[in-house]
Amino acid sequence: MNAYLDWAAASPPEQDILEEALTLSMENWANPSSLHVLGKKAEAKLEEARERTASVMKVSSEKLLFTSGGTESNHIPLLSLIGRSSKGSIAVGATEHPAISEQAKMMANAGWKIITIPCDSSGIITPEAVSRAIQDDTALVAIMAVNNETGAINPISEISKTLAARKENRRSVFFHVDGVQCAGKIPFVHLLSEIDSFSVSAHKIGGPRGIGLLYMGKRLEPFIRGGGQEGGLRPGTENLFGAWALSRCLERACNPEIYEYGRSIEAYAFELLAGIPGVKTIPESRSPGDERFSPWIIQLSNEALPGEVLVRALSGHNICISTGSACSSKKIKRPILHAMKISSEVSQNAFRVSFGHRTTREEIFFFAENLRRILKEL
Amino acid sequence: MNAYLDWAAASPPEQDILEEALTLSMENWANPSSLHVLGKKAEAKLEEARERTASVMKVSSEKLLFTSGGTESNHIPLLSLIGRSSKGSIAVGATEHPAISEQAKMMANAGWKIITIPCDSSGIITPEAVSRAIQDDTALVAIMAVNNETGAINPISEISKTLAARKENRRSVFFHVDGVQCAGKIPFVHLLSEIDSFSVSAHKIGGPRGIGLLYMGKRLEPFIRGGGQEGGLRPGTENLFGAWALSRCLERACNPEIYEYGRSIEAYAFELLAGIPGVKTIPESRSPGDERFSPWIIQLSNEALPGEVLVRALSGHNICISTGSACSSKKIKRPILHAMKISSEVSQNAFRVSFGHRTTREEIFFFAENLRRILKEL
Repeated sequence: MNAYLDWAAASPPEQDILEEALTLSMENWANPSSLHVLGKKAEAKLEEARERTASVMKVSSEKLLFTSGGTESNHIPLLSLIGRSSKGSIAVGATEHPAISEQAKMMANAGWKIITIPCDSSGIITPEAVSRAIQDDTALVAIMAVNNETGAINPISEISKTLAARKENRRSVFFHVDGVQCAGKIPFVHLLSEIDSFSVSAHKIGGPRGIGLLYMGKRLEPFIRGGGQEGGLRPGTENLFGAWALSRCLERACNPEIYEYGRSIEAYAFELLAGIPGVKTIPESRSPGDERFSPWIIQLSNEALPGEVLVRALSGHNICISTGSACSSKKIKRPILHAMKISSEVSQNAFRVSFGHRTTREEIFFFAENLRRILKEL
Repeated sequence: MNAYLDWAAASPPEQDILEEALTLSMENWANPSSLHVLGKKAEAKLEEARERTASVMKVSSEKLLFTSGGTESNHIPLLSLIGRSSKGSIAVGATEHPAISEQAKMMANAGWKIITIPCDSSGIITPEAVSRAIQDDTALVAIMAVNNETGAINPISEISKTLAARKENRRSVFFHVDGVQCAGKIPFVHLLSEIDSFSVSAHKIGGPRGIGLLYMGKRLEPFIRGGGQEGGLRPGTENLFGAWALSRCLERACNPEIYEYGRSIEAYAFELLAGIPGVKTIPESRSPGDERFSPWIIQLSNEALPGEVLVRALSGHNICISTGSACSSKKIKRPILHAMKISSEVSQNAFRVSFGHRTTREEIFFFAENLRRILKEL
């Protein structure tokens, strides 16, 4: 028996889709920018992938660009500010993924002031916090839709309204939303008309690593330049294998039944975990079915073992979980929990479980039993 | 019958390698940064791909990072300058690909002075031209190994010696080489110890679109940040499918027999093209076997038709060629030919043929016969 409960880091592949995408990509291997018959054939398939994605997301296909992944999708709006002659401030949520938070630090070197918008004790960025934090010179606000470590859902619609209300007498603020843990996981299509850009990663929803998507509702002047592909916003020969797979995976993932299944396995996980001494959710106030949280991600603490030790101990039993972001697995700090004012003692022992549409109750049971046993044996 | 003579834009896939890479990547689908057993398994395969590449390139594997393609590989050294507090100049060859030349323009907005190093009438950047162009405040020099439109081979070793000689009393210059049309096409491994960075693209050598490599002989402080993958130089979940395929394709391509085959089909192409009235090479001084040019790329002119019209006419007969870079196929200008001081009349009618290890003499014959017929019928 084994259990893979680390879907927020990477999801098992939708094998049929990846195989279909490889076959299609090998049949259409030319450069989609080439003007000859084979180039046009590859371009047509790329546009078919874009149209399929646009249809799922209910947006115009011209507003979608394929990128090399969630990180690059998050970077494009940020980096576009580098070329501006008049610099101001960038406001980022305190719980952002390193793709935003680390890049924001570098933007400071490029002359931009960085404002960190605090979260509340549940790890949620409130519209009030955004309103208090942004300044007259704020050019861009970046707030993720779903937090990758806690599953906290930020109130994107309400934040958008707050930003719109402020716009009247001031210059407009570009609102970027990291949608990596949101797209294909919880309902999100309604958000797109309320924000300016939204990032998607394929390998979180069964697709390959190395492909992402950026919805650009409002065009920004790109700073990253090259051959002019993707409407000039993302240079480099287009990755048809990845784009096709992403479009098909997103189409498959955007299914209300999958979301309902998520709520049911979340409830089951809460039920089992509640019986394990010393194990609590982070934040403690979270309950099963809590609409402030994605059902797919639960952050937990225990009283006995450092999170990393627990990850390794469970891994020895073929159970895959994580502490927080895989991307920062080699770093020690837990900035998201720190922003939530979780004590360092609790943070140190924190760990994350995350689910997907193929997670079974048996896997959750196997994990919970092993967790209980490991903590009891100490 | 058909003929694909646009290998410089994209090469037909090495199907067995891509299938192997997909199978391997679906068996090792976890996030290579995850600390659990499945993450470690994926990481081991990624490192195996890196070691294989390092072995082909005869460099230490720590100096290799996988990127999303040639464009990103070319950007990393350039963008790393953005964060520097003291700004100076960047010197780029006049014949660079848009990944360098367009991004250099944006670097000007970030406070850097851009120096264009002129080429000679053959499209070659000489060490003397580099020496004359660079200034005391030049932080980076970017010169491609093989030009993507003319096949011109720049004297990288000699330029490197020129830069080293200048170093004594001045601050050192970082030397980046765009190797996209060089790696796996002409001998290049000897260059790596003489330069600071070198970019590779997989889809030019039978690999998938969306994966590239950057050799970083000298570490630069990265400007693009995120999860800390690839030694902190290239954030984003690692693309195992692409990395594996790139490593295997490079291994296959780096074969002296393939290079010899290139020289033989170059000679055959020259033989056939010489008999077509009005068709000349660009530069005219180029001859078959000319070691100043890659055998795989020939730029030509004709007296009758605009290059783009010719590309479309041949495409109607299932013959794929191009004018210049596919990446700038939607732009009208020919900056590389302009830098060579080719007249606009000649430039307008210019076109490119490019070959690969599976190009046959039959394809070249079919192309030459159709070219002759089309030009004659006018």
